[in-house]
Amino acid sequence: MQTAVNGLNEECGIFGVWGTKEAAEVTYYGLHALQHRGQEGAGIVANIDGRLRQERGLGLLADVFSKGDRLRDIMGATSAIGHVRYATSGSNSIENIQPLLAHFSDSQLALAHNGNLTNQVTLRRELEDQGAIFQSTSDSEILMHLIRRSQAPTFTAKVKEALNQLRGGFAFLLLTPDALYAALDPHGFRPFVIGQLPTGQYVAASESAALNVVGAKLIRNVQPGELIKIDNTGMQIDHYTEATDLHIDAMEYIYFARPDSDIYGVNVHTARKRMGANLAAEQPVEADIVVGVPNSSLSAASGFAEALHLPNEMGLVKNQYIARTFIEPTQERREHAVKMKLSAVSSVVKDKRVVLVDDSIVRGTTSMYIVRMLREAGAKEVHVRIASPAFKYPSFYGIDMQTTAELMAANYSLAEMTAKIEADSLAFLSVDGLVDAIGLQKQASGTGLTTAYFDGHYPSPIYDYAESMQAFEDAHLVDYMEEPTCKMHTLQPE
Amino acid sequence: MQTAVNGLNEECGIFGVWGTKEAAEVTYYGLHALQHRGQEGAGIVANIDGRLRQERGLGLLADVFSKGDRLRDIMGATSAIGHVRYATSGSNSIENIQPLLAHFSDSQLALAHNGNLTNQVTLRRELEDQGAIFQSTSDSEILMHLIRRSQAPTFTAKVKEALNQLRGGFAFLLLTPDALYAALDPHGFRPFVIGQLPTGQYVAASESAALNVVGAKLIRNVQPGELIKIDNTGMQIDHYTEATDLHIDAMEYIYFARPDSDIYGVNVHTARKRMGANLAAEQPVEADIVVGVPNSSLSAASGFAEALHLPNEMGLVKNQYIARTFIEPTQERREHAVKMKLSAVSSVVKDKRVVLVDDSIVRGTTSMYIVRMLREAGAKEVHVRIASPAFKYPSFYGIDMQTTAELMAANYSLAEMTAKIEADSLAFLSVDGLVDAIGLQKQASGTGLTTAYFDGHYPSPIYDYAESMQAFEDAHLVDYMEEPTCKMHTLQPE
Amino acid sequence: MQTAVNGLNEECGIFGVWGTKEAAEVTYYGLHALQHRGQEGAGIVANIDGRLRQERGLGLLADVFSKGDRLRDIMGATSAIGHVRYATSGSNSIENIQPLLAHFSDSQLALAHNGNLTNQVTLRRELEDQGAIFQSTSDSEILMHLIRRSQAPTFTAKVKEALNQLRGGFAFLLLTPDALYAALDPHGFRPFVIGQLPTGQYVAASESAALNVVGAKLIRNVQPGELIKIDNTGMQIDHYTEATDLHIDAMEYIYFARPDSDIYGVNVHTARKRMGANLAAEQPVEADIVVGVPNSSLSAASGFAEALHLPNEMGLVKNQYIARTFIEPTQERREHAVKMKLSAVSSVVKDKRVVLVDDSIVRGTTSMYIVRMLREAGAKEVHVRIASPAFKYPSFYGIDMQTTAELMAANYSLAEMTAKIEADSLAFLSVDGLVDAIGLQKQASGTGLTTAYFDGHYPSPIYDYAESMQAFEDAHLVDYMEEPTCKMHTLQPE
Amino acid sequence: MQTAVNGLNEECGIFGVWGTKEAAEVTYYGLHALQHRGQEGAGIVANIDGRLRQERGLGLLADVFSKGDRLRDIMGATSAIGHVRYATSGSNSIENIQPLLAHFSDSQLALAHNGNLTNQVTLRRELEDQGAIFQSTSDSEILMHLIRRSQAPTFTAKVKEALNQLRGGFAFLLLTPDALYAALDPHGFRPFVIGQLPTGQYVAASESAALNVVGAKLIRNVQPGELIKIDNTGMQIDHYTEATDLHIDAMEYIYFARPDSDIYGVNVHTARKRMGANLAAEQPVEADIVVGVPNSSLSAASGFAEALHLPNEMGLVKNQYIARTFIEPTQERREHAVKMKLSAVSSVVKDKRVVLVDDSIVRGTTSMYIVRMLREAGAKEVHVRIASPAFKYPSFYGIDMQTTAELMAANYSLAEMTAKIEADSLAFLSVDGLVDAIGLQKQASGTGLTTAYFDGHYPSPIYDYAESMQAFEDAHLVDYMEEPTCKMHTLQPE
Repeated sequence: MQTAVNGLNEECGIFGVWGTKEAAEVTYYGLHALQHRGQEGAGIVANIDGRLRQERGLGLLADVFSKGDRLRDIMGATSAIGHVRYATSGSNSIENIQPLLAHFSDSQLALAHNGNLTNQVTLRRELEDQGAIFQSTSDSEILMHLIRRSQAPTFTAKVKEALNQLRGGFAFLLLTPDALYAALDPHGFRPFVIGQLPTGQYVAASESAALNVVGAKLIRNVQPGELIKIDNTGMQIDHYTEATDLHIDAMEYIYFARPDSDIYGVNVHTARKRMGANLAAEQPVEADIVVGVPNSSLSAASGFAEALHLPNEMGLVKNQYIARTFIEPTQERREHAVKMKLSAVSSVVKDKRVVLVDDSIVRGTTSMYIVRMLREAGAKEVHVRIASPAFKYPSFYGIDMQTTAELMAANYSLAEMTAKIEADSLAFLSVDGLVDAIGLQKQASGTGLTTAYFDGHYPSPIYDYAESMQAFEDAHLVDYMEEPTCKMHTLQPE
Repeated sequence: MQTAVNGLNEECGIFGVWGTKEAAEVTYYGLHALQHRGQEGAGIVANIDGRLRQERGLGLLADVFSKGDRLRDIMGATSAIGHVRYATSGSNSIENIQPLLAHFSDSQLALAHNGNLTNQVTLRRELEDQGAIFQSTSDSEILMHLIRRSQAPTFTAKVKEALNQLRGGFAFLLLTPDALYAALDPHGFRPFVIGQLPTGQYVAASESAALNVVGAKLIRNVQPGELIKIDNTGMQIDHYTEATDLHIDAMEYIYFARPDSDIYGVNVHTARKRMGANLAAEQPVEADIVVGVPNSSLSAASGFAEALHLPNEMGLVKNQYIARTFIEPTQERREHAVKMKLSAVSSVVKDKRVVLVDDSIVRGTTSMYIVRMLREAGAKEVHVRIASPAFKYPSFYGIDMQTTAELMAANYSLAEMTAKIEADSLAFLSVDGLVDAIGLQKQASGTGLTTAYFDGHYPSPIYDYAESMQAFEDAHLVDYMEEPTCKMHTLQPE
Repeated sequence: MQTAVNGLNEECGIFGVWGTKEAAEVTYYGLHALQHRGQEGAGIVANIDGRLRQERGLGLLADVFSKGDRLRDIMGATSAIGHVRYATSGSNSIENIQPLLAHFSDSQLALAHNGNLTNQVTLRRELEDQGAIFQSTSDSEILMHLIRRSQAPTFTAKVKEALNQLRGGFAFLLLTPDALYAALDPHGFRPFVIGQLPTGQYVAASESAALNVVGAKLIRNVQPGELIKIDNTGMQIDHYTEATDLHIDAMEYIYFARPDSDIYGVNVHTARKRMGANLAAEQPVEADIVVGVPNSSLSAASGFAEALHLPNEMGLVKNQYIARTFIEPTQERREHAVKMKLSAVSSVVKDKRVVLVDDSIVRGTTSMYIVRMLREAGAKEVHVRIASPAFKYPSFYGIDMQTTAELMAANYSLAEMTAKIEADSLAFLSVDGLVDAIGLQKQASGTGLTTAYFDGHYPSPIYDYAESMQAFEDAHLVDYMEEPTCKMHTLQPE
Repeated sequence: MQTAVNGLNEECGIFGVWGTKEAAEVTYYGLHALQHRGQEGAGIVANIDGRLRQERGLGLLADVFSKGDRLRDIMGATSAIGHVRYATSGSNSIENIQPLLAHFSDSQLALAHNGNLTNQVTLRRELEDQGAIFQSTSDSEILMHLIRRSQAPTFTAKVKEALNQLRGGFAFLLLTPDALYAALDPHGFRPFVIGQLPTGQYVAASESAALNVVGAKLIRNVQPGELIKIDNTGMQIDHYTEATDLHIDAMEYIYFARPDSDIYGVNVHTARKRMGANLAAEQPVEADIVVGVPNSSLSAASGFAEALHLPNEMGLVKNQYIARTFIEPTQERREHAVKMKLSAVSSVVKDKRVVLVDDSIVRGTTSMYIVRMLREAGAKEVHVRIASPAFKYPSFYGIDMQTTAELMAANYSLAEMTAKIEADSLAFLSVDGLVDAIGLQKQASGTGLTTAYFDGHYPSPIYDYAESMQAFEDAHLVDYMEEPTCKMHTLQPE
């Protein structure tokens, strides 16, 4: 059971709306804009005439809702929440697809969650010891049980009491027949925003990009420790704790979020472009052209190219259709899968010294395939520049442990890595360069950015994961680590 | 919520096996033999290498398991339980399809249920007040919560404590990675048998007909109040209560069960044939031929015909393929649906005085269509003989309230009914005739047969339904009721 | 290619209607009544606003039309033809599912076919040599090509010319935007009837049972050699040849047709009952009870029982749900498949001498399983009586060659067969007994009944199959054949 | 019927391989790289043990082949051809999905086609008058009939005779059990290349980008008028006509082909970048940033930006997931669909004078939505620059007539268009600028490039379309047309 529970660290997208006759459609459009945050499953719970109805399935949003008349069945709903899910293999059963929905004799409660609870194993055991029955293997269900078991006098009070028992990163949307609630963890690991439709109703979403699609204006970022209630009387901003300390996950800026999203006032594309520029300043290289890995690294590549006055060329083309191989993954197949996604443009790279800009390296195999591809297309030299620091520590708020165990940068020296990916040179952005590029202003709710992946500094105890972390440290390179600083990155005053 | 919970009175089929490498296939074959007990959904939970895996879906068993590789995925399982589900419209969501499966940090529990709990509303409210979260709207989930919350020292003790809190009719199969459990309610409302495979392993099934299909021999009827545990050490027969009093539901003999099943030593086909014979003795008629409504009334028709020395003819033919209309049900469509299922054979019934033998009448509309069909085919007279007593009272153990509200016999006199179904005459079997026909021997576990549908005598308090029952009595005919006797039918000594 | 073409001997059902707004629904209901004639595929071509639209798929009618909105898409059609298809394995690709539909620049033509052309290989080769391209491997497509290539002046004349080139058995329905055509082969091997709706429109169907379901009255049997045209001006009965000689396939009365159908004035159930009675007279047996194999042999069993004044008992029960095993067919699995379909009722057959009445024996394996089943249920003796003559010769009008090659009666003596099926005795109805039981009146269009399966007398040359037939004769028993008479069975004068 | 046939003008992708054990997989990967050429349907015909087997379905390649075991079923094939299909609504029935496959008594023939025959109506009528039956409404089937009807002595001779009867644009792949054939029309309207796998086998593909994915090297462009035969003896290059004159469709460079494809030695990305540069030279504009419409216009935008030394910014982001609305398309919905695909990045465009570079304008509505989107995101000015000439004439080789009728540039003046799309200014690339940007070298097979969309000069008679063309000219603006030059664009000598 341990693995099943541990395996569920996830990056997801959530969206909710209250008080419009087009709640289901708006939620569908909003989730579509968040599809990059999770492709394994999708669902919507919608309020139809005072009763919550759940529609969910495995796969992409459009596929889930093209089956039967699922979207038609919930049209006319006046409020809804939705979820797109990313998860590791093994846990992809329908029970884990969100939003979860529980039926009570006197009410209903739906829940959508983006994040990962670091004390989930402990809480789940405690709840089970008290007789709780879990239908899913997802940590998200824990909040439902905590709310139901709370003896607090009102629903809001129950929710607050329950939220205070959670540790780790979480952005929650709760829907009852009476109200929509949004809550963010005390460190604000995940982005979470509130928008307003032209007709006045409120929407909540993982990223501001989802607001644009439905025509909503960004009103505010949900702040760490907040519990926001939206109902027919409007929006009430409350908080369940004062002990907050903002540590938004740097990976949101580097990789997860859409370039057209703004997080705490910083546009993601712009931040990435500055990462590229800082990288160029820190790690310049003699070359003829700059090539970004599409699509996620195009912003950084343009920043890099502009800084060095090099031409930014389309040396790699991404197939816009999803590749499926249907075949057992062998080494050869994996190379094929990369080729189905990316092609090198020979006439662009031939006889050129190429700077290949990518946003990150995890295992390194994809990088190796891309370097090979460029050489086969005629590139004379290939210099790899990574627009984020070397990824050496496990994440407990968004990437699963198995991948972490294979982190290239945790196991090899820079020279070894350069050889492994078959590049002429390899360099990473520094942590300071990253922090500077993001340029996050100091917020009332806290002062920082989580860069634990790069320096091992976790802003909060990691509870149930402490043992795994020790095992990780024992298993990996120590000498390569450049004194993991435990200081927080000082942000510029607002 | 009230209706959702009330609407779930159901007639289902359950099957389980322990200790054979072909557990999934055996369960599939067994469920196929029980498909007549429920066509809305089907599922199997199987133990694969110590871990329970759930496969379930809406629709017929063969359809559910033809999708993907569902049966293949659970092949090699060494134990399994399965369920075929009948349910009223509205509750046909996947969450309610059984067996239910709950995951705990330290174990798993699967459950399949045939019956209806009369104190479900009360129990559910109590559990919810204590913080329990229900995923389904099915009453079956209640047992899981009661077991989990029990403070008793062993799993078996927890199950016993939980079973003692239930009221109404239930046959349960529970599966854990360690054992298979079978339990029957104290009145034994539903049939439930234990069989043994040629290779020695035990199986449990709703009806003995399911044993034949898998090559198992009938070992014993599960007795009221028993809790049977089957594991690698064999079968242990235990009981959770001594306060038992057998009241097997007469409708099992009349309509629900397969003709090739034996229930407490009485073969169903034989009992039905005797119902026909007793009906002929009580309500004879001058006629040329006897025609039974296929397939359920063919046994009674042959008994009726033999008793009066009339030819038993195939005057009605049933289409063996399932009819679907895809069209909103209007009065006209309903007549069409009957015509898609049944046809009158003109060359058989033309110019004949026909005795039409049917097993029961609920709303009377189908009977009217059949009488009309026979007349259109040339029948000179149509005398309807029903091989069971008039159905006047609601059931709390197998038929849902909505249908009950439309019971023809509860609302009209015999003369009115005859006119409504457009018959030349109409007569029912007496309750005594029914009891005699079934001829159930006195059992150690009790003395009776439930005939509450016909005489309003309920063998146990009806708890949560008391209010509905009062409303039913107020709304329906009183003077038609022939002094509902509260005495139990005295059975012949064994 | 040879096998693909040869393998397509088939028994199918066809239905058509002209001139009603409910043409699609009527055709759907009609096909449902003909589902027993083919379960492999189903389709409807309907005229929507002057344009023919095709909907077809693999599987049962209700399954094919429950996908998407297939029936809804053709609602409002004013004419339609439909088809249910039976076919041997290997040819079950969507291209072969009928009705076929061809698009021309100036028109459209749809075609549904029940039968088998004995000169299909020759015709197909000739057509291909002239440049014809076949999309299906079905022989039915040949008629389309012949019509299109005809130089005759009118469409009707083209159809006549084309029909005259076909040999073998065929009942065709053709639909153009302008008219519905029905044609029957010169020997009338297949049943084919015309009915009339209460509102006056004409329908055509393989069996009269399909008329009842849609509320139509039987007007007439399509006669051998006829070409009937139905359009907005009414029905015109024409013929494409005078050289007719009725030889309706005896297997329609024995096995294929529904008991509630009438073929040339003879009700199928009644004919079967007489087969049972004649069999009892020819092959009586000392026994306690008669048991028919459900459902197809119930009529014969009741005739047999009445003739010998033996009780006709339900000793075998048929599961009304379709069995699927999903597993590679081994000998053991085949026995399982029989058990999933049929169960013996122990309390009926225990300690009894049983006469088991079946309609026919092909390979004998199913009979063996049933005999075993009855003995396991306690039968003391099992005497098998087959209500048709021994099936010794291949059919070229409805059963495929592969099955024929395994015909038990063509390979073994009566004593060997009795041993193989493990019966206490075995006997067949005589050919004369069969002819007498059917009791077909002499028709204007001819004088006979095809009993070639039993006596090898084929009413017409078998063309492309002559070689296969010689091979069959060489490969099988000669001495068991009782002098295959080539005389036609003299029918009673009308 | 006219519309059905006319509506089938299409842009598709084809791929074939001969002589490798992985023929099915290689074809699947190759088609994946061509998916951008058609998303409506996909199919593969593969040679398994000497017999051709067809797998095809509606939708994207990966969806079609994820159903059942379609790819697994054809694994081990030693040769295969495949097709991805683009088609207008109404013709999306399964019969039209390619490759087509015909079965003959003595052989099989499969066909995949990219192009549009301008004499299809005439040929089809002639063939039908000779008795040909068409199963599809696709013009591609015509070649099959012509081949079958040819009296030429060999298969190759038949194919040559048939090809000589076709007019318009076509690239064909034919597969028989014995060989793979590739043929291109005399004007070479569509790209078509031959590659070679590292193991020596030949592949044929619509675009060179598909060669990269399967690891094949580009060997040569199929030349106009060629018929290439590939079998176990190798590749034989033959031609069916000498009357060739290369006029590759300019739209392939502008829009259809992938940027990483090379067509007649010109890389598509590079050509587009030059179109942007030429556009900047012809139509410069005072602005702060350049924004390309992703993904198709990114190359042109970078050329434009570099030429004017303006920053090339990511002001628009494309959602990489396919959008589906499931809702009847209203004006409002269409705007929504654009928003689901594209978002403006406010932090990039705010207060900026934006040059929006797009590759083409058809109806103008999408352009209007994008201009609005940029303004809502804060753009101060939006100047639209189209990197191709104004699209004023219908295409008979790749875009359907219905769309053509709504061509904005054929109906409005430049000032009107600017107002309609709500831009501050609008300008197009000149035809000469386009020709120069592509920079196609003179080929042995001819001298030109088709720019008929822009100047109305069709390189060959348009046969069946002449009437439509006249109607088009009558219905649209004349005075806006800048003297449609009938001269061919003189290309640079090779």
